[in-house]
Amino acid sequence: MNRAIRTDLALEAEALWRENQSAPGSPEGVLARHERRGAFGVTTVEVTSPQGEAALGKPMGKYVTVELDALIRREENAFADACALLAEELRALLPLGPGDACLVVGLGNRDITPDAVGPDAVDCVMVTRHLRQALPEDFGAFRPVCAVCSGVLGTTGIESSALVHAVAGSVKPAAVVAIDALASRSPDRLCRTVQIADTGIVPGSGVGNTRAALNRETLGLPVIAVGVPTVVDAATLALDLAARAGLQPDPAAFGDAGGMIVTPREIDKNVRDIAKLIGYGLNLALHDGLTIEDVDMFLS
Amino acid sequence: MNRAIRTDLALEAEALWRENQSAPGSPEGVLARHERRGAFGVTTVEVTSPQGEAALGKPMGKYVTVELDALIRREENAFADACALLAEELRALLPLGPGDACLVVGLGNRDITPDAVGPDAVDCVMVTRHLRQALPEDFGAFRPVCAVCSGVLGTTGIESSALVHAVAGSVKPAAVVAIDALASRSPDRLCRTVQIADTGIVPGSGVGNTRAALNRETLGLPVIAVGVPTVVDAATLALDLAARAGLQPDPAAFGDAGGMIVTPREIDKNVRDIAKLIGYGLNLALHDGLTIEDVDMFLS
Amino acid sequence: MNRAIRTDLALEAEALWRENQSAPGSPEGVLARHERRGAFGVTTVEVTSPQGEAALGKPMGKYVTVELDALIRREENAFADACALLAEELRALLPLGPGDACLVVGLGNRDITPDAVGPDAVDCVMVTRHLRQALPEDFGAFRPVCAVCSGVLGTTGIESSALVHAVAGSVKPAAVVAIDALASRSPDRLCRTVQIADTGIVPGSGVGNTRAALNRETLGLPVIAVGVPTVVDAATLALDLAARAGLQPDPAAFGDAGGMIVTPREIDKNVRDIAKLIGYGLNLALHDGLTIEDVDMFLS
Amino acid sequence: MNRAIRTDLALEAEALWRENQSAPGSPEGVLARHERRGAFGVTTVEVTSPQGEAALGKPMGKYVTVELDALIRREENAFADACALLAEELRALLPLGPGDACLVVGLGNRDITPDAVGPDAVDCVMVTRHLRQALPEDFGAFRPVCAVCSGVLGTTGIESSALVHAVAGSVKPAAVVAIDALASRSPDRLCRTVQIADTGIVPGSGVGNTRAALNRETLGLPVIAVGVPTVVDAATLALDLAARAGLQPDPAAFGDAGGMIVTPREIDKNVRDIAKLIGYGLNLALHDGLTIEDVDMFLS
Repeated sequence: MNRAIRTDLALEAEALWRENQSAPGSPEGVLARHERRGAFGVTTVEVTSPQGEAALGKPMGKYVTVELDALIRREENAFADACALLAEELRALLPLGPGDACLVVGLGNRDITPDAVGPDAVDCVMVTRHLRQALPEDFGAFRPVCAVCSGVLGTTGIESSALVHAVAGSVKPAAVVAIDALASRSPDRLCRTVQIADTGIVPGSGVGNTRAALNRETLGLPVIAVGVPTVVDAATLALDLAARAGLQPDPAAFGDAGGMIVTPREIDKNVRDIAKLIGYGLNLALHDGLTIEDVDMFLS
Repeated sequence: MNRAIRTDLALEAEALWRENQSAPGSPEGVLARHERRGAFGVTTVEVTSPQGEAALGKPMGKYVTVELDALIRREENAFADACALLAEELRALLPLGPGDACLVVGLGNRDITPDAVGPDAVDCVMVTRHLRQALPEDFGAFRPVCAVCSGVLGTTGIESSALVHAVAGSVKPAAVVAIDALASRSPDRLCRTVQIADTGIVPGSGVGNTRAALNRETLGLPVIAVGVPTVVDAATLALDLAARAGLQPDPAAFGDAGGMIVTPREIDKNVRDIAKLIGYGLNLALHDGLTIEDVDMFLS
Repeated sequence: MNRAIRTDLALEAEALWRENQSAPGSPEGVLARHERRGAFGVTTVEVTSPQGEAALGKPMGKYVTVELDALIRREENAFADACALLAEELRALLPLGPGDACLVVGLGNRDITPDAVGPDAVDCVMVTRHLRQALPEDFGAFRPVCAVCSGVLGTTGIESSALVHAVAGSVKPAAVVAIDALASRSPDRLCRTVQIADTGIVPGSGVGNTRAALNRETLGLPVIAVGVPTVVDAATLALDLAARAGLQPDPAAFGDAGGMIVTPREIDKNVRDIAKLIGYGLNLALHDGLTIEDVDMFLS
Repeated sequence: MNRAIRTDLALEAEALWRENQSAPGSPEGVLARHERRGAFGVTTVEVTSPQGEAALGKPMGKYVTVELDALIRREENAFADACALLAEELRALLPLGPGDACLVVGLGNRDITPDAVGPDAVDCVMVTRHLRQALPEDFGAFRPVCAVCSGVLGTTGIESSALVHAVAGSVKPAAVVAIDALASRSPDRLCRTVQIADTGIVPGSGVGNTRAALNRETLGLPVIAVGVPTVVDAATLALDLAARAGLQPDPAAFGDAGGMIVTPREIDKNVRDIAKLIGYGLNLALHDGLTIEDVDMFLS
């Protein structure tokens, strides 16, 4: 596998394995399937064995990637349809019984635009845990949801995983949903793809500062990761474009781009938009019978 | 005591008691003294008994209030002098031995301007806990400091005190410094007075949503509170101005101002400025031999 | 008239005149009428003579004030209904023929929260002037609208009126709409009342720095002013509350509150919300057959 | 010349011409010289004839590029030294007599991070025009300086050049300084290079939406352009890295990166920092005898 190509998306890792092997099928221990769901594409990659882990460089588990090109093309009802689809996929992976509490965590640095997707999404999450107690007649039917932004090690001095561990120990949720920015290989996927995984997450992958993992091993709780690619590593882009041009460059020659990232020109707006989608989709997944108008009203 | 006049400042509560009693001295169980320190005034109020608690409505402990009018008048070196004075007063109250870890907490809601002084101050705190390990030759001599913004119950679903309790249990500091916005009686003090207390704090006092306390009882750790008045309750202002005009109004007639606050016109800028002062003063208090230029360099 | 009570709202000035005169009717040269429009109240004050000007301290013209309490109570469809009502009142005052160009001006300082309502509203205005030329098939039917934020004298060194005069001379609109923050007498009206006037506006009234007027005399163009009260002068509040308490205070005793303003606690959010309403209402007024969903789509 | 490599920097255009020609010297009609100035490098490119214009694709005039690597390495006094150097170079190009008025224009879109360098720099410019009249004893010795942010066509409906033309017609400055984001070829130069030119500027080059020029022809006034590269076009980066790897790719193969930009990971902070440097350098250039502390005090 070409390790110089960097991606946090399982579906790209799987495709890359096939490119490198010039093999038609998935690696052993990996199941991949793609389906069309209305205007959107959904790709599910399951890593089922250690061989699969080694091939993709991803821990065993299920990775569901929703491609939201219809949203970008602004097809009618695209936002509502995308929310509904996200909610459906999230529900399928979230191991929550009725009334089980959920802790939502926004990972990443709010002050670095492409890293702000987690905190921005948390701003759109309906926080209900305290309202159930304070206003039981209005909110008694809502699932208890609480939400924190973990900050980043550089500004808190505390590992995100340690902070989430401490908070989870206090609020004792049945599951954690962790939202973070990712890096992808392809610029086409930036801010228009959402990967949902039942494997947990390693915070900071998207912007290049890998930290301790948030997963069942470290938290003692199921962790559903929701990730959005917001950057392509500049060296990855260069290598990839060179490869598409039929060239076989030496990856070492591309080190000059270190510390540089590739983003869409309108990254500020794109991050806000996809963060809102994730927040809304998550709200629909966590509470029964909710509409987008209900969420608008709650958050206003 | 005129309970309709609302203040979080011990020195105002003490003055109010005297006004109401038409008494020349402090109440029993309260010691108050004022001194001039260069261009600044420092008032220390000590509540030493339950009678003192009852008289002022403040828990037993020491409240040091620094009045920063010279800063507003822009006297030469006023910022540096104010930092040095704050640092000195903080050191006197902080029970930290050499190398002891400190957790700094920014209380309040970053999205409500007069409530943002805690989070804004945290942005100016030098976070060093992780650097001591990663870069021991550069940062080995620094005290380990970590910092979190607790958010507010309405946006996290978690009481600030519960969150800080959980984080403190994880990072095990020797002391907590909690920074929050306060309410004062006098508009003259807004954004130009800092109260430092060894009693801990009840988050949200400043903007009117009282929550569970952060203090030695709830955290099992010494909690130094740093508070800045950023608002006057509108009914308090009206009552107070009426009283100064020689009138004895019925407080019930002033309920119309409910939910309204009085702030300086330039509250956005004033909050940022005083938050920076607190952050810098705290850095000088926590690390030996540091200069303002060092802090500028670290934070840039 | 009690000149110590400060208000930029014609309906408050008219009520104040009656209070001071203990007179049942409006002053000579002033016509006032109130009507219920669905869930909202609409008060129209017409100043028709120099006597009326002197009585209210407002130039001759028509002042329509929409009271949006239903919006605050969150009645169903309140946002859509309020937009429709604003649009209707704006259309009645805007002297624009089909296809006539309009220049929208956001007055005030974006960095001072209660003064940001003009710039924030401009962020919600559909700017179409350049699109008509670039994409005639999509935008040919839209009225040409352009928009600027004039900044404030302290940050530009240029009077808002001089800047708007220069821009209007370049883009030659048929009318100017100027949006600004106002000061009211009553805290109840803050961020929930919109005054539309065909008299133009004196920028900066709301936050106390009066500047040269923007009106037909200075610009040579009709200027429709859209104003929202976001602050009450602190001395005004105190005097007013004292008066309600049956007292007759000396206004001079209230000078202590100088430079202080009274705002709702959630002023940051309230300003954004009412600014959005104004932007949307203006869009519906300026373009035929537009829906709120169209505006959402355009601005997203 | 390889037109697929995109750069707004004259020194890169000159180097590119030499690469393409495999020629040792500058093209005819172009003079280039490099010198060391303390810790910084200064390269001056003069385009002196139409042949030079054709070779570099830049209008005739003088382009001074200051390379600020010492700033990034945080050498002692680097900020002060860089301000002084910028001020010196700006003074050499600014055709201002004592007391002549200057209009500073921030070009670009404040809401798109890499495009915000102009508006952010304007926030650090000392605006004095109105103070000379209001406070002549304090500010009578200052040059009259005013400042506007032109916004962008997409949010104002007005070309930046038309807006600046209108404002200049009103305030009648002796010269205009226009600050904008640029695109460079090399990621190494992002946010650490400033180009000052006496040729005026075409707004929006940096982020790819070329607009009408701001120069002596369009404004009737000398226009000094101050530009900072904040982005590399993604296709340019890929082509350039491929070329460095010894490959000769077909530019058409790199079109996939359309709309993507390359920036440093910390673009938000880097833009703020370099904008502050430009604002401060410009203040020192415009007013005699000013120190950095004076600017700090004025802007605080």
